[in-house]
Amino acid sequence: MSESRGSELMEKLVSMCKRRGFIFQSSEIYGGINGFWDYGPLGAELKRNVKDCWWQGMTRDREDVVGLDATIILHPKVWEASGHMSTFSDPMVDCKRCQGRFRADQLESTSCPDKPSKMVAQCEAEKTEPRAFNLMFKTYVGPVESEENVAYLRPETAQAIFAQFKNVLDVSRQKVPFGICQIGKAFRNEINPRNYTFRSREFEQMELEFFIKPDEIAQAEGALPVDDADVKTPLSNWGWKQWHQYWIQQRLSWYESIGLPADSLELYWQEGDELAHYARATVDIMYRFPFGVQELEGISARGDYDLGKHQEHSGKSMEYFDADAKAKYVPHVIEPSAGVDRLVLALLCNAYSEEMIPNAKGELEKRVVMKFHPRIAPIKVGVFPLQKNKPELVAKAKDIYDSLKTRFAAVYDETGSIGKRYARQDEAGTPYCITVDFDTIGDGGSLEMKDTVTLRERDTTEQSRVATKDILPLLGNLWFNPCTLLFSVIFPEKSRVSGYLIRVSREEKLA
Amino acid sequence: MSESRGSELMEKLVSMCKRRGFIFQSSEIYGGINGFWDYGPLGAELKRNVKDCWWQGMTRDREDVVGLDATIILHPKVWEASGHMSTFSDPMVDCKRCQGRFRADQLESTSCPDKPSKMVAQCEAEKTEPRAFNLMFKTYVGPVESEENVAYLRPETAQAIFAQFKNVLDVSRQKVPFGICQIGKAFRNEINPRNYTFRSREFEQMELEFFIKPDEIAQAEGALPVDDADVKTPLSNWGWKQWHQYWIQQRLSWYESIGLPADSLELYWQEGDELAHYARATVDIMYRFPFGVQELEGISARGDYDLGKHQEHSGKSMEYFDADAKAKYVPHVIEPSAGVDRLVLALLCNAYSEEMIPNAKGELEKRVVMKFHPRIAPIKVGVFPLQKNKPELVAKAKDIYDSLKTRFAAVYDETGSIGKRYARQDEAGTPYCITVDFDTIGDGGSLEMKDTVTLRERDTTEQSRVATKDILPLLGNLWFNPCTLLFSVIFPEKSRVSGYLIRVSREEKLA
Repeated sequence: MSESRGSELMEKLVSMCKRRGFIFQSSEIYGGINGFWDYGPLGAELKRNVKDCWWQGMTRDREDVVGLDATIILHPKVWEASGHMSTFSDPMVDCKRCQGRFRADQLESTSCPDKPSKMVAQCEAEKTEPRAFNLMFKTYVGPVESEENVAYLRPETAQAIFAQFKNVLDVSRQKVPFGICQIGKAFRNEINPRNYTFRSREFEQMELEFFIKPDEIAQAEGALPVDDADVKTPLSNWGWKQWHQYWIQQRLSWYESIGLPADSLELYWQEGDELAHYARATVDIMYRFPFGVQELEGISARGDYDLGKHQEHSGKSMEYFDADAKAKYVPHVIEPSAGVDRLVLALLCNAYSEEMIPNAKGELEKRVVMKFHPRIAPIKVGVFPLQKNKPELVAKAKDIYDSLKTRFAAVYDETGSIGKRYARQDEAGTPYCITVDFDTIGDGGSLEMKDTVTLRERDTTEQSRVATKDILPLLGNLWFNPCTLLFSVIFPEKSRVSGYLIRVSREEKLA
Repeated sequence: MSESRGSELMEKLVSMCKRRGFIFQSSEIYGGINGFWDYGPLGAELKRNVKDCWWQGMTRDREDVVGLDATIILHPKVWEASGHMSTFSDPMVDCKRCQGRFRADQLESTSCPDKPSKMVAQCEAEKTEPRAFNLMFKTYVGPVESEENVAYLRPETAQAIFAQFKNVLDVSRQKVPFGICQIGKAFRNEINPRNYTFRSREFEQMELEFFIKPDEIAQAEGALPVDDADVKTPLSNWGWKQWHQYWIQQRLSWYESIGLPADSLELYWQEGDELAHYARATVDIMYRFPFGVQELEGISARGDYDLGKHQEHSGKSMEYFDADAKAKYVPHVIEPSAGVDRLVLALLCNAYSEEMIPNAKGELEKRVVMKFHPRIAPIKVGVFPLQKNKPELVAKAKDIYDSLKTRFAAVYDETGSIGKRYARQDEAGTPYCITVDFDTIGDGGSLEMKDTVTLRERDTTEQSRVATKDILPLLGNLWFNPCTLLFSVIFPEKSRVSGYLIRVSREEKLA
């Protein structure tokens, strides 16, 4: 996408997100706080759904992964062991005149606070040598602000998993290979938060540490790539290359399962200096954001670096006795590490569509529609009485709403024309709307229409007549099928996009 | 409960929680960090379920409450407006000799670091006048540790709701009365974290701010208590007394719906100095913990204090135009504010039971069983093949497990005797176990037993034969029924506790 098209789309999206309550600036009434964002009613549901889908896929659907929910503030030695104390930093330069502190690699592009027309690099005032500025937020635990009471907000959730590896292993009856996963907040004192919620100072992560045999125990040396390995190498002989490949495939499938199309994602293999010294391979799953192709998740083969470091610093053994291989070893690890907020942003970007559809008079009008996959849509179904001043319609619609809301996030809406109500739900990304009309209550002249409602599908705008009793089973399939697919399965004759509908296709959006 | 019985029970519980992976000390391999606790695999699921039940009950089941997910670090002016900057503190005394800092009200009960046999109050060294020590964790946002960059970790989630009140109102199409709810981490730098996870420094809250008409607009002056008001006063005329009473009832019902018996809860009405100066009434819902009767939740009628303060400090109007009453006002608020971690602890205490049941030889043996309500149980169902070396049993059990795990947290277990496997699930609090045996696969001699399994109920230890195809619908009712109730509905003849079973009843536990 061109830069101007990209920023135009982002402007529209940011405005829609505020207007519809997906995302607000944190503390907005006090002027906001740079790098912090709140999720409003629709955003909070969307984010919950994304996290629930990940948790379901990672732990409940699998036998070999268990969950953890650890604290944000950990013992500071955790960060000594992990290397964050010494290396998780940006080089910064102080200006002796204005007392400003600037990123050493951005002096050419940062305005001078004293002379905003000049860049910091052009300012003649004396500057210090670059110094390392640690990106962890620091605080003090206990009443005294002394060095011994310093603690940090975790910059990633992963380290708590390593620190609790032995405890979890002892209680979970798991054998290597197995994983421990966690969802939670993390904090990085970014110098330049940017790109809306993409790079913020407070964010949420979904991380898995999947512990595997070292190659020499798995006897996987020279093992085949996973395509062949699936068939030829028994799982117990998989080494890091197979497991790394396996998790790349798993994670790509998962993104597709919540509605990110395969063609919106790219794999980027880190090379040379990009790669941490202990990493054997790191692949980034990248999404084509309007502001550029950016990382959603990193999948890293980290050897035994992390457990080894915690063993060294804590003096506690991280060794595992492998009864099958009759060997004792520190497990190696594959780490798929995803950012919740940037994924939510990707899903918002991907869902955002503008289309021309005919209004009641047959004139084309623009609609904004958020084409979320039903699994992550904040609201699954809207229920409307055709008119709000007919008690029978209202009562029937409320009955249906009540029967649905215990199982699905549902809304009841009786205000404005049906067209306006559809439009509201289109913008919220609600995949289905149900309208109760006079036929439903047996007052429309058609006997066979009694106890049926209109089911309207968001993406095609197609409408079908459905028996009231079929609503629940129909919607029950939402979790497993993409929206349009479900509709085309139930109503094959409506599987194609209506002739009236002029779609702005994904390809056009990205042009 | 007597103090010694109470601490004995807590010791057993803490040990079980570590052994089974409900709760670990944070950063344990580095000696732990005082006031911080991690949730292991079972604990993480339990806590997720509690939060999901609250979210479902608060927002998805209701039309008049929407969700929010705000940041932990807010603009510091939020805490000036809320009063936390000036009043959220403990008075502390410094000792000039040992440099220790002590709570002024605990000098008589705190050991002197220099002379541990003496209390601080007896130490002759010079001490400072008590000074206010703010309980908020402080940090700096941005690269410079200057006063203008100070920020705090939120000590409660509520203030972000007030700060975003207008944004949410604008997007959510709600009218007063309506609520905004939020679940999230909060931090308090407690001087003395204590009682296991009950009072910790990092914890999670579930808070609702329910905005109502001021009494003079609702014309509720002299309104009846809620019992009568339900009938005689239309909801639009409810004032704070009715809404306060309404939320007390709602919250008590909710605790019962996740398995805390009514007789384990008490209401405590704050009086005199306990009551914040702006609060009209505050009721604490108290649970009888083994270490004493302690607060789970506070339900406070706070008038317009919070919105008023933010209006004053931000200069932004918090007024609401009430089209029905044709009046403009700052809404008043009822705040039900619950702690997740202390509730999880209450649920653990409530569930913990020791019972004598007969083993295979008919001898009585002790079992530990966690009697969680099925809605919050970390695992809903265990699936076992009778023997692990019979491929047909294993295949059938895995089929059933696979069909269940997408809808319920399920485990598959093939290790050890069936009795051992039941015992494992009893301790994990799994309400049902399913065993696949030779009858299931049509290899047991009885034709009518084909395609049936043994369904075993945790609390009664009763077993029944159930058709494989009925498992899913039967377990589908778990969400709505307490465990034993469901079993007695399905199998009325088994509704009473078996004669073999010697229960340690709740009353005995509390004696």
